[in-house]
Amino acid sequence: MPLEIPEVVIDRLPVYYRLLARLSYEGRAVVSSQELGEELGVTPAQIRKDLSYFGRFGKQGRGYSVPRLTEELRVILGLDTRWSVVVVGIGRLGRAIASYPGFEDQGFDIVALYDADRKVIGTEVAGVVVRDSGHLEDDLRQRPADIAVVAVPSTIAQEIADRLVHGGVRAILNYAPTRVVVPAGVELRHINPVLFLQSMTYHLKRTANRNLRAPEPLPRRDPSAEARPA
Amino acid sequence: MPLEIPEVVIDRLPVYYRLLARLSYEGRAVVSSQELGEELGVTPAQIRKDLSYFGRFGKQGRGYSVPRLTEELRVILGLDTRWSVVVVGIGRLGRAIASYPGFEDQGFDIVALYDADRKVIGTEVAGVVVRDSGHLEDDLRQRPADIAVVAVPSTIAQEIADRLVHGGVRAILNYAPTRVVVPAGVELRHINPVLFLQSMTYHLKRTANRNLRAPEPLPRRDPSAEARPA
Repeated sequence: MPLEIPEVVIDRLPVYYRLLARLSYEGRAVVSSQELGEELGVTPAQIRKDLSYFGRFGKQGRGYSVPRLTEELRVILGLDTRWSVVVVGIGRLGRAIASYPGFEDQGFDIVALYDADRKVIGTEVAGVVVRDSGHLEDDLRQRPADIAVVAVPSTIAQEIADRLVHGGVRAILNYAPTRVVVPAGVELRHINPVLFLQSMTYHLKRTANRNLRAPEPLPRRDPSAEARPA
Repeated sequence: MPLEIPEVVIDRLPVYYRLLARLSYEGRAVVSSQELGEELGVTPAQIRKDLSYFGRFGKQGRGYSVPRLTEELRVILGLDTRWSVVVVGIGRLGRAIASYPGFEDQGFDIVALYDADRKVIGTEVAGVVVRDSGHLEDDLRQRPADIAVVAVPSTIAQEIADRLVHGGVRAILNYAPTRVVVPAGVELRHINPVLFLQSMTYHLKRTANRNLRAPEPLPRRDPSAEARPA
């Protein structure tokens, strides 16, 4: 396996995996880079290039074996292992994350929840008792965790990240709306709502333009007009 | 402009835009699909294909004009307009979103905040007074909004989405950890933490494997060993 795989390729792998897992569930044996590309709106060349980083999965002209590629991606992405996750900040978001139904199925076990609020400490969320975030480092020393989800207010996000790293956590998913910094070797993802909004305004703008063009000879509500080649 | 552009291409445009805006800010005049591809870890062919959906920006062998492509993407993505955003659910997450420093710069104006909690209604967050979510539809009729961010508990996410759509909102960014359904013509994005976690476990697994292989002849901390071709 080459040392340097572009980060964006790695970020695309979960999307490939999700599609392949679905095809696998549907009993599909083989899939072409063409079809994967169509489903994901990516060129077949890009698909082949992305997957080529991880070895020779496909056979020229015969496509990829769906069960084999699914399993290989599962192993590559580390989804054949279980990962322990702590959530820091048990406000509404942290509470929602702790109750998220998708984690356990995908190999992510929420092992501990932390908050600083006396009213929240000791309460139970999704079967886990919220602990005092003052104990974070001690707890992590006794029972290491792989990943932390940070859902605290912006003002303390960096401090919490520092303490998590100090406690040996090597991956942080930051929901706090501020950028935090971690040392090399620690994985960090920010959930940035602006990028999501920007992909929606593209559509809003198109619809708005369409509305502005409303008094056209062909009424837009007539489906045959939509289907007619331009 | 063709009628059907794959959704994933549109989702990539904000990432292109962000890179181009940076290059533009740095005073760059021209950029090649090769260089864009290297920065983003995408093949130059994919870049050219993605951008070709929106007309002929590049000149063969001369690259793209950075200011022009930045401006065109800005217009395509609808970032030359201001968009009004309401946030529903002013718990810690909603509060954090309302205070997010990145929205206003990018053309997103948070015009109203809503919550159902009597203790929260009437308080001010980032200069906006939280209103009773019971008034949502009435308010939207009087003062339409383009986009809503939903940060309510899962149990009421669908109800809130229905009411927003009823009130004329045409784009919803859902943070509630449950899938909601909206009619055709309404844009919807879910923020799914599992995909983010999966792109990090790839790295965790590699590091874990490296640690397991620790007693190797070449110490991994020696940078020259890292640089040596395998």
